[in-house]
Amino acid sequence: MNFDRLKSEIKLITFFSEEELASLSALFSEVNLKKNEFLLKEGQVCNFVAFVTKGTLIYYKLLDSGKELTTDFAFAGDWVCNNQSRLCKISSALSIKAIEESQLLVIRTEDLEDCYKRYPQTERLGRILMEQSFIKIAAQTVDLQTISASDRYNKMLRDYPDVFQKVPLHYIANYLGIAPKSLSRIRKNP
Amino acid sequence: MNFDRLKSEIKLITFFSEEELASLSALFSEVNLKKNEFLLKEGQVCNFVAFVTKGTLIYYKLLDSGKELTTDFAFAGDWVCNNQSRLCKISSALSIKAIEESQLLVIRTEDLEDCYKRYPQTERLGRILMEQSFIKIAAQTVDLQTISASDRYNKMLRDYPDVFQKVPLHYIANYLGIAPKSLSRIRKNP
Repeated sequence: MNFDRLKSEIKLITFFSEEELASLSALFSEVNLKKNEFLLKEGQVCNFVAFVTKGTLIYYKLLDSGKELTTDFAFAGDWVCNNQSRLCKISSALSIKAIEESQLLVIRTEDLEDCYKRYPQTERLGRILMEQSFIKIAAQTVDLQTISASDRYNKMLRDYPDVFQKVPLHYIANYLGIAPKSLSRIRKNP
Repeated sequence: MNFDRLKSEIKLITFFSEEELASLSALFSEVNLKKNEFLLKEGQVCNFVAFVTKGTLIYYKLLDSGKELTTDFAFAGDWVCNNQSRLCKISSALSIKAIEESQLLVIRTEDLEDCYKRYPQTERLGRILMEQSFIKIAAQTVDLQTISASDRYNKMLRDYPDVFQKVPLHYIANYLGIAPKSLSRIRKNP
């Protein structure tokens, strides 16, 4: 069942025969995380790419002040990893943890590299997922530099219409860089 | 001569036969820019990817204050475009201009898309260049949020040892977000 969603996602992007798709899927392992369990901890090198089949995860980093800053969310259907750590093989500057019971399909970097060689059409998948990751980080960077918390809130609602059903308010406030009280105010007067 | 450097660059990343490489190269046009001429202007949609064979270019954006902020540089051997504008087909939030006489080989987005179909190995080139772009923007974002002008200066010297031979001081100061006088001070006491 979980693998069906992964296969559909891959088929949307590139062509694999059913046989190839079965071999590719076999390289993914199922990982179940309970609430507050980690997929990746700050300081570890990210040596995987994961596909979320159920649940919600957050990316966050620990600031010098000791506070946590939520930098991103991931929901069912999203791909999850720390690309900077994975591509540069450096320690991750952030952690990724489940904020509710979650299920993921995880492929290790070395198996992915092997796929690029064995199934050249994996390159298309890799290229398009990197383009999507680039678009996301570029938009986040511009937003952080230029737009208000209220505009970021509206943008978030547009990108993730059901985020308030899935993510506790304090994580969203933290992501927007504002106090939970301010977020409640913005929600009343968007 | 210019095309030789492009071909070597492509061969470093992926396999093309000489015949394929010739067909691929034929899709690139030579563009010569004089000092202060634009490759891309803010507000235009970036519909190309370019490879610098000679010269120096800067990326910059016009701030609300009316000042220009240099966000990146490009030298011979670098690929140049505004990926966010190109991939999302949206107006570019920044301009790219030559700060000395420069030569580029430019491929239009639609020809590149066509290459992905005709020569699947182009996907590998696309994937790896996107990974490099991702690594660059991710590092810049973290740097902007976390490290001092002095550390950014040292990092720049490490990444581009001859930047002071190629780029006038005021652009570098602008990129580092400091006054030219402060940069002179840092250079004396790195």
